[in-house]
Amino acid sequence: MVDFSAAGSAHPRPQTVPEDDPHIGEVSEGRVLRTILTRTPDGVFSLLGPGDDAAVVAAPSASVVATTDTLVEGPDFRAAWSGGYDLGWKAAAVNLADIAAMGARPTALLVALAVPKDRRLSFVAALADGFRDACDALAPGCAVVGGDLTVSATLMIAVTALGDLEGRAAITRSGAREGDDVALAGEMGRAAHGLSVLFRRFHPEGVAIPVDPAVLDEGEADAISAQLRPVPPIGLGPVAAIFGATAMMDVSDGLALDAGRMADASGVTIALDRAALGAHPHRALAGGEDHALLATFPPGDLPPGFRRIGSVVPRIPDAPVTCDGEPVGPLGWDPYRDAGADAR
Amino acid sequence: MVDFSAAGSAHPRPQTVPEDDPHIGEVSEGRVLRTILTRTPDGVFSLLGPGDDAAVVAAPSASVVATTDTLVEGPDFRAAWSGGYDLGWKAAAVNLADIAAMGARPTALLVALAVPKDRRLSFVAALADGFRDACDALAPGCAVVGGDLTVSATLMIAVTALGDLEGRAAITRSGAREGDDVALAGEMGRAAHGLSVLFRRFHPEGVAIPVDPAVLDEGEADAISAQLRPVPPIGLGPVAAIFGATAMMDVSDGLALDAGRMADASGVTIALDRAALGAHPHRALAGGEDHALLATFPPGDLPPGFRRIGSVVPRIPDAPVTCDGEPVGPLGWDPYRDAGADAR
Repeated sequence: MVDFSAAGSAHPRPQTVPEDDPHIGEVSEGRVLRTILTRTPDGVFSLLGPGDDAAVVAAPSASVVATTDTLVEGPDFRAAWSGGYDLGWKAAAVNLADIAAMGARPTALLVALAVPKDRRLSFVAALADGFRDACDALAPGCAVVGGDLTVSATLMIAVTALGDLEGRAAITRSGAREGDDVALAGEMGRAAHGLSVLFRRFHPEGVAIPVDPAVLDEGEADAISAQLRPVPPIGLGPVAAIFGATAMMDVSDGLALDAGRMADASGVTIALDRAALGAHPHRALAGGEDHALLATFPPGDLPPGFRRIGSVVPRIPDAPVTCDGEPVGPLGWDPYRDAGADAR
Repeated sequence: MVDFSAAGSAHPRPQTVPEDDPHIGEVSEGRVLRTILTRTPDGVFSLLGPGDDAAVVAAPSASVVATTDTLVEGPDFRAAWSGGYDLGWKAAAVNLADIAAMGARPTALLVALAVPKDRRLSFVAALADGFRDACDALAPGCAVVGGDLTVSATLMIAVTALGDLEGRAAITRSGAREGDDVALAGEMGRAAHGLSVLFRRFHPEGVAIPVDPAVLDEGEADAISAQLRPVPPIGLGPVAAIFGATAMMDVSDGLALDAGRMADASGVTIALDRAALGAHPHRALAGGEDHALLATFPPGDLPPGFRRIGSVVPRIPDAPVTCDGEPVGPLGWDPYRDAGADAR
């Protein structure tokens, strides 16, 4: 029996719209904000929460790690597949992963929403639930501290995540050294597989999933879940830093493309072992949106949660990444070039 | 002679599109990012700039002030009136004002751009120039430390600003006390006047301004400039805090609405003097987007740049704001309710 909740949203979708669920265009900004804020309690780093011109967040290391990433309807998601809860979860997760990839602990999220007037208030409520639950599950102590709301013809969720290095140096992409182990924590290619299942089985403009779970096998259901509600290993970012990671980044555009970026930044070649890339090496190399953590470590023991997938070798001209010694060509995706491409 | 540059963009708009100015949809994300980054040098607070998963920004006070605000084409601006430079400047300025309103010094901006495919690369370059110049002019030392880029049917600029309290407590909206002076630094109603001039004289879908400066009188040109490229008194936020401000906020939705918010948060009534509101008191009360700083101070000397506009009195039921003793009704705008309303 396939677990139905793994395929679609764990957050129940109302079958009928309650009478008190107005369109966003019909209610005041204040009511929308209250709907969000009642669902997103302060985190332990919030010194001053929402309600003023700006929030104040603790920065114990006297520095703050900051990143921003946006989900836009069309290039980044389809409304037929992603409910509000899914979108809140994913928008949080992808930003938390960027903080973790620096070796930092996430402390706060700021959320800028641009919402079409004809969306329901319950959609925004579900978004807020998704943000809260993703923080609680992936980065306890982190919370939504501020936001902004505007109307737009296109649904857009721009999130900024903040984090603290806990006194450590930031782990950049440029520190990989010859002889280091290359290791990964998290999924490889599963989110991209989930997207391909969605495109193949459910027309993007068609019926919202969950539809009939009987049509999905278990691997497909898991893959769809990885696409809609990714679970990157946020807590392992600081662990990797403590274990002496020399370089780290999150894999958002596929292992081939992102390992190439790390190799270029470090002036080395990353030599991957095909046998370590799982049952579907091409998916692992080309598939984006898993938000796994790719890191290099001095040879020896790896931190818990990381598995060895290759090693760092001296730079091979025109071959930033190899797989079993063969250069890996341009795989992965450039979200700009491929935006909206149904073929991906 | 009207100063032409004050009405339209100070940044020259190309009359013809150069051959090497491709559409955004035709170039790689990397090229767009390089176009931006070559125009936005690191600031003094940037410990690690763009190019990694996240930036690292100094937070000397061991806390960080953070806010986010978005400009969306349609509700927030018209492409016919605002060039890329104007939009970059304004998106920076409105966020810097929220940091200043807490009594903090801005340290960094993160910029999430969602850009239609048919926009030119030069548009994004002008945006970056606007961000840089606004930081340099309004908050020296602050810089763009990170960003995100995606394609979207709707142009959207979501900015997060960070700031440092320099060891002081944050100035909230809730600290106004009976007997305090109410003071303001910056413009009152000029940006809204500029918007009304634009709506009246230049159809939003029509010819881009600058058109014929001869049709504008000097006050109108200044008002349009205040709307397109506001110059809020960012540096006076920390000054107000040093001078003992008891409450502070930025006036983005008009003095009546925002003073009412401060009054509600503080449990007082703000009693304004009409004579202190300039030649157009209604504009001052109702007009948004000036991003002036509204602050309360213990009675006595005001800091440089602030002028007295009223006093804090005990709460009058149902009258958070009065003007010459008369309750001020609901004025100002709710950007949600009024989005796209040409009548504003």
